[in-house]
Amino acid sequence: MDERQEVLDVAQRAKNTASMLRPLTRADKDRALRAIAAGLRANTERIVTVNATDVDTAASNGTAAGIIDRLTLSGERLAEIADAVEQVAELPDPVGEVVRGYVLPNGLHVQQTRVPMGVVAMIYEARPNVTVDAAALCLKSGNAALLRGSSSAYATNTVLVDVMREALAREGLPQDAIQRVPGTSHESVTHLMNARGLVDVIIPRGGAGLIRAVVEGSTVPVIETGVGNVHVYVDAAADLDMALAILVNSKTQRYSVCNAAETVLVHADVAEAFLAKALPVLADKGVTLHGDPVVVKAAQTSHADVTVEPVTDEDWAAEYYSLDLAAGVVPDLESACQHIRRWSSGHTEAIVSDSAAAIAQFLNGVDSAAVMVNASTRFTDGGELGFGAEIGISTQKLHARGPMALPELTTTTYVVTGSGHIRP
Amino acid sequence: MDERQEVLDVAQRAKNTASMLRPLTRADKDRALRAIAAGLRANTERIVTVNATDVDTAASNGTAAGIIDRLTLSGERLAEIADAVEQVAELPDPVGEVVRGYVLPNGLHVQQTRVPMGVVAMIYEARPNVTVDAAALCLKSGNAALLRGSSSAYATNTVLVDVMREALAREGLPQDAIQRVPGTSHESVTHLMNARGLVDVIIPRGGAGLIRAVVEGSTVPVIETGVGNVHVYVDAAADLDMALAILVNSKTQRYSVCNAAETVLVHADVAEAFLAKALPVLADKGVTLHGDPVVVKAAQTSHADVTVEPVTDEDWAAEYYSLDLAAGVVPDLESACQHIRRWSSGHTEAIVSDSAAAIAQFLNGVDSAAVMVNASTRFTDGGELGFGAEIGISTQKLHARGPMALPELTTTTYVVTGSGHIRP
Repeated sequence: MDERQEVLDVAQRAKNTASMLRPLTRADKDRALRAIAAGLRANTERIVTVNATDVDTAASNGTAAGIIDRLTLSGERLAEIADAVEQVAELPDPVGEVVRGYVLPNGLHVQQTRVPMGVVAMIYEARPNVTVDAAALCLKSGNAALLRGSSSAYATNTVLVDVMREALAREGLPQDAIQRVPGTSHESVTHLMNARGLVDVIIPRGGAGLIRAVVEGSTVPVIETGVGNVHVYVDAAADLDMALAILVNSKTQRYSVCNAAETVLVHADVAEAFLAKALPVLADKGVTLHGDPVVVKAAQTSHADVTVEPVTDEDWAAEYYSLDLAAGVVPDLESACQHIRRWSSGHTEAIVSDSAAAIAQFLNGVDSAAVMVNASTRFTDGGELGFGAEIGISTQKLHARGPMALPELTTTTYVVTGSGHIRP
Repeated sequence: MDERQEVLDVAQRAKNTASMLRPLTRADKDRALRAIAAGLRANTERIVTVNATDVDTAASNGTAAGIIDRLTLSGERLAEIADAVEQVAELPDPVGEVVRGYVLPNGLHVQQTRVPMGVVAMIYEARPNVTVDAAALCLKSGNAALLRGSSSAYATNTVLVDVMREALAREGLPQDAIQRVPGTSHESVTHLMNARGLVDVIIPRGGAGLIRAVVEGSTVPVIETGVGNVHVYVDAAADLDMALAILVNSKTQRYSVCNAAETVLVHADVAEAFLAKALPVLADKGVTLHGDPVVVKAAQTSHADVTVEPVTDEDWAAEYYSLDLAAGVVPDLESACQHIRRWSSGHTEAIVSDSAAAIAQFLNGVDSAAVMVNASTRFTDGGELGFGAEIGISTQKLHARGPMALPELTTTTYVVTGSGHIRP
């Protein structure tokens, strides 16, 4: 059988299974989630052993240490993954929620209710925990999951999916609720992206290249996630100590993630004072600055020990995912908004200001999934916002925007109930 | 200047204008809408005269009478269009609505609020009223509108857009909030579909061919609308008189629209009794049946005067938009659901039944934007459901499903407000 047909067969089985998952009660789904968590714990040795083969292969291929670390599953990490599945069981079931409901003058009852999307496909890189997280969130929201991880985690993902399917079977639920997409070639991803009519949505998670390829190549609807060119704006009315603490946290608390800051913009009125405070602290934290002429000059004149590279358009556009930071001084708030509208990826921006008028102007002037007011950009995260889980952070405007959890894995149906109503 | 550049320039102006529209108050927008309505009324003669040139051209091209009727603007129709704009002014403003709002344990205030989408492009056929309806709904929801009507209405759409822009200018609002997409060629549509980054969403309205071309060809996100292969299921527990009234209304009240029924499925237990009632009534109404063998036999044995064509797979798949109706008998409710899952376009299905269990099973067994319970399929309509307006009926699962009005023309932003909050 050729690979295309294998992928389509898997997608067809997912579609067939979706109609069985739709009527499951929350109790059914939570029972299955707890069985999956128990199965992961009971199979720790089996999973860790298989994972070691992926790790060995990656090491012998000369893979970078950071990527090998993300790939590695210890008993402890597996226990955390199992805990996360049990936390999903604790979350409310989005299916059946009545989003709107009312009675029309003619007596028709209208209810817009949440229903599962159907078949959700995830295409993702490296971390095998996504395999389990995504499967758990799809199951809880009544969707059949199609999982396509990276080829470097192929053996690990295979055993994780096997263990989860065994748990489903023990609980009498259809195993095809959770399936791995066969194949490790780029073509197998292409076949998945063309399975329109079988797959309801594809969610890519990973680097900018992966996400762009899926957005541009897919005929199945896609939710674009996660690319973050994130800005911190220090307003004229900012508490400068607060601004520095927020900037340092946004840039350095964890720099390899999409909600880390990549650019700081400072209002000209406070630029000298703020840069005097910020430059040595950022240098101490290991941050490399890419500054406009004002920032470069500030470094040269008052802080000869701090090196600032001249900023380029590539810097303004960059998602560094490193300790690099672009820095510029703007004459006013509107110029900051214009800069952000031009360069931002629409993920998260922050303003530090004590002026209600400035905050209101900033909220109208930028157009991103999340705006932090006097808070670190690192709070754009489903867990931090209290969602209890996260399947990704949408940077598109349709369907879902910002951190996505269970409700975002559903669609809605209008149920209109009459007693023989016809249109006159 | 080449056509591609002209289209991109128009889109760029729309994007530039979007950030000016976002902070407009409801009062500003409603004032502009009333000025547009007044402008349409004051320019009746000018508009009707220009429209006559489009109508003459269409007539001399041998255009069908039905299409010419849809193209024609009388003074009376124009007054109705102006009334509709004033009704949009009466609707609540979706922008600023707080969808979710709460305070986290750490004191962060989280608000998910509605904001305009940005730039909304409509691609549509024939009816010039869509030009005004769409512009009004986009303006009310704070979006810049890009309007691409059919070439047969080019002169009419041009004068309508001119009149609306004159009204915006009188009210001191940016004229580029409402723009016509230049060009009449298919290429100009292609340029619009490739304006990713400038246009936030494209909504196609028209026949299946137009919608398919936009869905498949666009790199800008699309909301798929309106194609309806709609089913009525007559359950074993149906009141057969109610079922017949609902079927007749669903099929014949207006057959050229997407929420008209195209297939009836009858439970075997009531097939003989229902068909005995239904066949002569449907024949009287001018309906041509395409029946499965049971339906054909019922017609031959008990109603020799009724002709039933043998049904084919093409019939089950058809959106007739005519007085044709496919008809089949199913052994049970699950078979009806299977048929609908296989053939439906996911727009609307109806069940006629007095059994709560059967209704619940049907709601779980089909997967469409709307399900009518003991009501005509013709109620899947923004106006009928009390939305006050409608920009189209989505048949996709992402973003919006079913009739779309003002909230569906918005996206959301998370505004997270702290007092120096950083992540530990």
